Amino acid sequence: MPHLNIQYSANVESALSMPEYCDAMYQTMLDSGVFPLAGIRVRAFRADHVVIADKLEANAYIDMVLRMGEGRSAEDREIVGETIMTRAADICSELMSAPHFALSLEIVEISKQFSWKKNTMHARLSSD
Amino acid sequence: MPHLNIQYSANVESALSMPEYCDAMYQTMLDSGVFPLAGIRVRAFRADHVVIADKLEANAYIDMVLRMGEGRSAEDREIVGETIMTRAADICSELMSAPHFALSLEIVEISKQFSWKKNTMHARLSSD
Amino acid sequence: MPHLNIQYSANVESALSMPEYCDAMYQTMLDSGVFPLAGIRVRAFRADHVVIADKLEANAYIDMVLRMGEGRSAEDREIVGETIMTRAADICSELMSAPHFALSLEIVEISKQFSWKKNTMHARLSSD
Repeated sequence: MPHLNIQYSANVESALSMPEYCDAMYQTMLDSGVFPLAGIRVRAFRADHVVIADKLEANAYIDMVLRMGEGRSAEDREIVGETIMTRAADICSELMSAPHFALSLEIVEISKQFSWKKNTMHARLSSD
Repeated sequence: MPHLNIQYSANVESALSMPEYCDAMYQTMLDSGVFPLAGIRVRAFRADHVVIADKLEANAYIDMVLRMGEGRSAEDREIVGETIMTRAADICSELMSAPHFALSLEIVEISKQFSWKKNTMHARLSSD
Repeated sequence: MPHLNIQYSANVESALSMPEYCDAMYQTMLDSGVFPLAGIRVRAFRADHVVIADKLEANAYIDMVLRMGEGRSAEDREIVGETIMTRAADICSELMSAPHFALSLEIVEISKQFSWKKNTMHARLSSD
């Protein structure tokens, strides 16, 4: 049940297409081989209000939190994190080239004992 | 201070009323007897962009995170989680009957040492 | 990489200016001396749907989660939390004076091992 939560400032959408960004993150997660297709849920939320660093209007951020089921190795999580971050920076090349951008990612685990899920897509996508 | 955070894809609103969904989650939390009335805060956020599973337009998700004050027993948390999840699946019966839906819930605890709260409703609702 | 995530019910905006609230939180974080200027990201998200306490229309909430890099002392985190909370209650004086408001804050740490960041503002703001 990998959940990629993306938060971003509205001005990011002047520099890139957020649907394309989400799609690239999705593809990177899928290509990692770590996650079942049916479980991948990438979503993005535009902040209603932001105050960033020295408050220049150009300042922008994308912050991602990847929640994944516990039990995978630390190494797997490090590799996935590195891979997602590298791809994200690549897509954000325009933003990365100017001194106004903060990109971040954290991976946290979902407790097996205190989580519940029902997914009607698994049967349909059972070849994964 | 129970916080139920609901995130969902916009297409969920074609299948159910999100205000009614939130209200049912609220009622389930209240009926559990575990939470003080004045502290219950259920809220839902519609994602601005999503990419789900095999990217069919029909794919939809609701993901919930219940944050509750630490100190309750593991058993209480398991029962509350099961109850909320069962009720959620029930309300989502239309979505649950098609192979395009992912429903999830996690319960996490709020640190007592590193949290602060001021609630002006407790006095008014002191009979609870 | 301090992230202040603010969630709130839409009716809060009848009682205060959310941009001013965010700015006050930002200033409080900056004045604490704990956080590097380039890393501060305050953002607010208005809930699309809410159900709060006894469901009066006047019921409102602001819930904040401050995510900060691990490694600072418990004392630092307690002081920062107290300071932010005190300032927040001060700005919310109108809401705090009526029996319909819940204000909350939690501080959580960001894992160093499982987080990644790229920030093009640090070089520009290197005097901090």
